[in-house]
Amino acid sequence: MSGASARSSRDSVSPPVSFADRLIPRLRALGHPLCVGLDPHLASIPALFARGTMAPGDERTAEAVEALLGAVVDRVAGRVAVVKPQIAFFEQLGWRGMRALERLCERARRAGLLVLLDAKRGDIGSTAEGYAAAYLGAEAAIAADALTVNPYLGFDTLAPFVAAAKANGRGLFVLVKTSNPGSGDLQDREIEGEPLFGLVARGLAASAETLRGPETGWSSLGVVCGATWPEQGQRVREALPRALFLVPGYGAQGGSASAAVATFVPGPQGLEGGIVNSSRAIVFPEAAREIADARRWEQAIDAALDQAIDELGNAVRS
Amino acid sequence: MSGASARSSRDSVSPPVSFADRLIPRLRALGHPLCVGLDPHLASIPALFARGTMAPGDERTAEAVEALLGAVVDRVAGRVAVVKPQIAFFEQLGWRGMRALERLCERARRAGLLVLLDAKRGDIGSTAEGYAAAYLGAEAAIAADALTVNPYLGFDTLAPFVAAAKANGRGLFVLVKTSNPGSGDLQDREIEGEPLFGLVARGLAASAETLRGPETGWSSLGVVCGATWPEQGQRVREALPRALFLVPGYGAQGGSASAAVATFVPGPQGLEGGIVNSSRAIVFPEAAREIADARRWEQAIDAALDQAIDELGNAVRS
Repeated sequence: MSGASARSSRDSVSPPVSFADRLIPRLRALGHPLCVGLDPHLASIPALFARGTMAPGDERTAEAVEALLGAVVDRVAGRVAVVKPQIAFFEQLGWRGMRALERLCERARRAGLLVLLDAKRGDIGSTAEGYAAAYLGAEAAIAADALTVNPYLGFDTLAPFVAAAKANGRGLFVLVKTSNPGSGDLQDREIEGEPLFGLVARGLAASAETLRGPETGWSSLGVVCGATWPEQGQRVREALPRALFLVPGYGAQGGSASAAVATFVPGPQGLEGGIVNSSRAIVFPEAAREIADARRWEQAIDAALDQAIDELGNAVRS
Repeated sequence: MSGASARSSRDSVSPPVSFADRLIPRLRALGHPLCVGLDPHLASIPALFARGTMAPGDERTAEAVEALLGAVVDRVAGRVAVVKPQIAFFEQLGWRGMRALERLCERARRAGLLVLLDAKRGDIGSTAEGYAAAYLGAEAAIAADALTVNPYLGFDTLAPFVAAAKANGRGLFVLVKTSNPGSGDLQDREIEGEPLFGLVARGLAASAETLRGPETGWSSLGVVCGATWPEQGQRVREALPRALFLVPGYGAQGGSASAAVATFVPGPQGLEGGIVNSSRAIVFPEAAREIADARRWEQAIDAALDQAIDELGNAVRS
């Protein structure tokens, strides 16, 4: 009796909706997979938002970063599904930077955006649990909807992130094939006829299966796979047919829109299966550098956003 | 003329002493390679230091962590050369945790300790520069003497850390063979007859050479190589004869003192060439759990410290 009543009271609380099942319907509705990267390079912050000396040690610098990225969040809300803060640039500002990041994540989520925190964390056992609690926990200090993680330490070290994602409706994106020129140093080396990145992808298959969303079938275990390497991406897609791809390298890093969506597959509204990140091209468009007028800065951001949305929207429709 | 005067004025400012040349003389003077890991597992914090609910979201939790680890720093100052805060446990407490870490690092350095920040960072290009500036920069927000980094993204991504270490007399420890059971998933896989961790070690050789200290000959580019894998450690030592080893896995993780120093080589005061980390056994000794008296807590920490120093001191003398 008490078992039945416990069960029925549990049934009345809905389990959290998976990250993939929250992301994919938004991407379908918007018609494009653009993710806006929030990488506050201090040297690029326009005069409109600058405060104090803009040195990392100046406490007003974190305010400037928060002002700029808060304004970007407001501009992109409703037009993209997800933003990706790069935590390194916040860490560079010490605890004030982390406080700015915390507030920025809250602001983005209040504006209806999903937050993918690009932190590339990875550590053993109880330390990985600490990171999972920090960013994917039910009471995370800096609440993200998803987190990037590094697999070098071994698959056992990913388990705490998988568990937190499953329990709390969050996602993780495992580094598989990164966009930088030196990514081949280790990732492309052949192990029994297969590159290391392929072995990583295959090793994720079982966890990816356990994180598949009941609504869309897409997994909340995703992979990072650079737009600069479309052929390698195909191999990863074969190993992980329902994993979401986070594709960096589009725009500033030289990958085209069609290369960026090369691993996507047909869905009800066009090609789908991941998100394509653009950071500098949206947040620091050439035309916005010297602008001191808020309305003209907004127009420059909007124009950069329009262009990326058009390019990527066309790529998933064609 | 102006060139000569610029040179002479530059000569009058001493270049920073390398991390290795600061660490090794201290280790020789102390006669043991113990590094005390500062991993504030919230569930283990003694009642003596607890504040509030001790939940990660409670703002008093960071105060409790700072109080405990500040007291540990005061106990170990003068008895060990280096402490290793594990940043995950601070990140779990949000920006207040990072502020506690910042203060703790300052306190440790004021007490004459070197700070090795265990953050296992790694990212591409300008982002790696951000991390290097955050922790190894001349004006780092959270100033560490050395940082752990992850090589999965490729050797190009380590260059900003090497450059910052060289410019500012700091060190880095690259993950090569980690202490966890699953470390073999990727690190042990054979590539043309050589395990991946061996390929990583060989790939670091040139950078290790550029970071050799003029006084001791030891390199400020170190490696992480678990005490649980002494044979693999030998292979790494052969590839990197003058790299410092950060050896985790001694004590709580089951590695013996002699296994922990298996990669060390004879020096003027016994075996040398790295540091051996112990975290839980020192910071949370069994006997200190239920203690509510400050003097008795100090005695428990001292006893744990004595035991580790004795064991490791014997291991490097024998």
